[in-house]
Amino acid sequence: MISLVELQESVDRGTLTTEAAVGQSLEAIRAHDKTIGAFVCHDENARAQGAGPLRGVAVGVKDIIDTADFPTEMGSQIYRGHRPRGDAPVVMALRQAGATIIGKTTTTAFAANDPTATLNPRNHAHTPGGSSSGSAAAVAAGMIPLALGTQTGGSVIRPASFCGVAAIKPSYRLLPTVGVKCFSWTLDTVGLFGAKVRDVARGLAAITNRPELAVPAGVAAPRIGVVTQGFAGAPDASGAAALQTAARAAKQAGSSVRELAMPEIVAEAWRIHPIVQEFEAHQSFAWEYRQNYDAMPPLLRGRLDESKGFTPFDYDAAIDVAARARQALGAVFDEVDVLLTLSAAGAAPKGLSSTGDPRYNRLWTLMGVPCVNVPAHIAEGGLPVGVTVIARFGGDAQALTAAGFIEDALKRP
Amino acid sequence: MISLVELQESVDRGTLTTEAAVGQSLEAIRAHDKTIGAFVCHDENARAQGAGPLRGVAVGVKDIIDTADFPTEMGSQIYRGHRPRGDAPVVMALRQAGATIIGKTTTTAFAANDPTATLNPRNHAHTPGGSSSGSAAAVAAGMIPLALGTQTGGSVIRPASFCGVAAIKPSYRLLPTVGVKCFSWTLDTVGLFGAKVRDVARGLAAITNRPELAVPAGVAAPRIGVVTQGFAGAPDASGAAALQTAARAAKQAGSSVRELAMPEIVAEAWRIHPIVQEFEAHQSFAWEYRQNYDAMPPLLRGRLDESKGFTPFDYDAAIDVAARARQALGAVFDEVDVLLTLSAAGAAPKGLSSTGDPRYNRLWTLMGVPCVNVPAHIAEGGLPVGVTVIARFGGDAQALTAAGFIEDALKRP
Repeated sequence: MISLVELQESVDRGTLTTEAAVGQSLEAIRAHDKTIGAFVCHDENARAQGAGPLRGVAVGVKDIIDTADFPTEMGSQIYRGHRPRGDAPVVMALRQAGATIIGKTTTTAFAANDPTATLNPRNHAHTPGGSSSGSAAAVAAGMIPLALGTQTGGSVIRPASFCGVAAIKPSYRLLPTVGVKCFSWTLDTVGLFGAKVRDVARGLAAITNRPELAVPAGVAAPRIGVVTQGFAGAPDASGAAALQTAARAAKQAGSSVRELAMPEIVAEAWRIHPIVQEFEAHQSFAWEYRQNYDAMPPLLRGRLDESKGFTPFDYDAAIDVAARARQALGAVFDEVDVLLTLSAAGAAPKGLSSTGDPRYNRLWTLMGVPCVNVPAHIAEGGLPVGVTVIARFGGDAQALTAAGFIEDALKRP
Repeated sequence: MISLVELQESVDRGTLTTEAAVGQSLEAIRAHDKTIGAFVCHDENARAQGAGPLRGVAVGVKDIIDTADFPTEMGSQIYRGHRPRGDAPVVMALRQAGATIIGKTTTTAFAANDPTATLNPRNHAHTPGGSSSGSAAAVAAGMIPLALGTQTGGSVIRPASFCGVAAIKPSYRLLPTVGVKCFSWTLDTVGLFGAKVRDVARGLAAITNRPELAVPAGVAAPRIGVVTQGFAGAPDASGAAALQTAARAAKQAGSSVRELAMPEIVAEAWRIHPIVQEFEAHQSFAWEYRQNYDAMPPLLRGRLDESKGFTPFDYDAAIDVAARARQALGAVFDEVDVLLTLSAAGAAPKGLSSTGDPRYNRLWTLMGVPCVNVPAHIAEGGLPVGVTVIARFGGDAQALTAAGFIEDALKRP
């Protein structure tokens, strides 16, 4: 994989030109993407910018995010050839930081469930996860050092876990979702993929102009609360192994680690996530669903067919649960610095018919809290399994710092 | 003006066909819009739908809201000829409720300050206000019974006040802003214009599928807190007269009415509104501002030039003030049912060079609370002046009900 931090250091030292940095990504795309299928389109003539912290950094942008220079097709024939007039704010933020938008990455149709043909670079017989399939796979395959994805249920953290890369789903609205195809305005969150935790931290710091997000070296051991999310069912053996391995490594590196039960209202928030998501999706996709029913991606259409019955009353009650759960979760962080939980039930499922299950991710998306995936275990078939490090709302720097600590701890023999 | 409630009753009784209802709007547009200039474009062949609570209701949609059947030009040459692929969710909600989208109404460029050529139907020498200029003017001129606008500072309530129509800026996110050109995601709110309070209430009830929003007849007198917003400066004589007249009428109709001071943190929220607005605007308009600087509307461009200095630190502090102010404001509503305040400093300014000042509106947009404009006073030159009725967050039905009560009270001799 291409480390953003190492690339920056080489560029700063003058041992790598920015053009060569972008060039290595173009070469890697030519070498691997015919097999992996992470890109919908890319620019063979992409050029580096001369300034900015992300100069020389080639970035892949999930194809539900507006770009003026590339079509934005949302993974759906309904948007075939669609060209937004302008770039989404988050794309402009990348450009302003000096990055090169090298292409658009595959997305499940409208960032829902209908899979893409993208392969998992760690094992081609498995899904890379979704909905940000191409962004996770492109970073994992060593094509690019940074990619943008989005998460409504678990669409950043889950593919990162399946592909063995670092990723952050930041606090709600740290990155603007303007110009990003909406699924659910209460949930949709733009996130970043990179090789390691420090790579995504540097990327996020650069595009938000918040230097405090870059993970410092040599930090104090965080107090960790392990959350097994029993309300979401039991994980696979590989998911449980990843969580146990990460918790043990952190403890050996000096962290206090204890299992934490979530307040009942938080478990209730896990249960009502689908009400918020689907009630808003019926509005967000009203034009597609009502005017283009036959062309709708079948799995998403089926979900909308099944969720027609939610009323404004159901929705208001769900929003109220979410608000109370956010408050209760805030109090949990008085006792620990971060939570540590599963990024997925286990390793990536076989085949491409499913992108996996977001049941261990969706609660945290609804809570709006920052989540960082750290690869923690390799299951049978060379398939990675990650864990999620979670800080309180707005504590993106804490989540990244603790995730970096755990990543380092996992490297120890 | 065309009353939505009366139109619905005539259609229900069978004394007005839905086609004739839409036809009267087309006729009124032909008769008046050459002078008023409320529409960017409209459909001379618009047809009524056969079913739904808004069948026969011709609606004007502010031209920053996506429509597939009409261009969406944002009041700016940068979007000349722009055609979104789909309808915004709020437009789809209108269609699903049976309404006819008859055309797009004028907007100041990107819903900021650069005025349109639209005239105030009450006095052609004056501005109709902005940014939802065309929507307010089209309803005031009797062209249509319902129109959509948006508010980030005071862009729904102020033009409603200047044009002498009822309007609601609902609770934050009661109506989705998906497919609406973003200015500030923390502030942008879609609102409705109608002839009277009950007209906008019926419209809002229909498009949200929330029948409880339709204002009942014969309600109990609300407990009213009058807020003069001293932190925003002193109003003109006509603004003060409107507030006094409305307060007196409500008291005579049985309301308890007392002046209320706002907690200091709420006044502080008034002060930091521009930080939230401009910091987000720099991101929302990044593509327009950086890639199309010369074509940017000059007043908005000047605002962005001047507000470049806000940092993420300033923004985070402002967001924190807003959160604490929302909490403090919630407690105010333990003592009163609604607040009554100014909709504008006074009557519409002369000329078309300014759309007026949102200083009495912006706090409530930031607080996310429902605001209803009620015409309360006629100033020199036949210019209307309104007042704003405000309920707690989520209390849209209470705001509308109390506004209906005050509207009735103002009719008494």
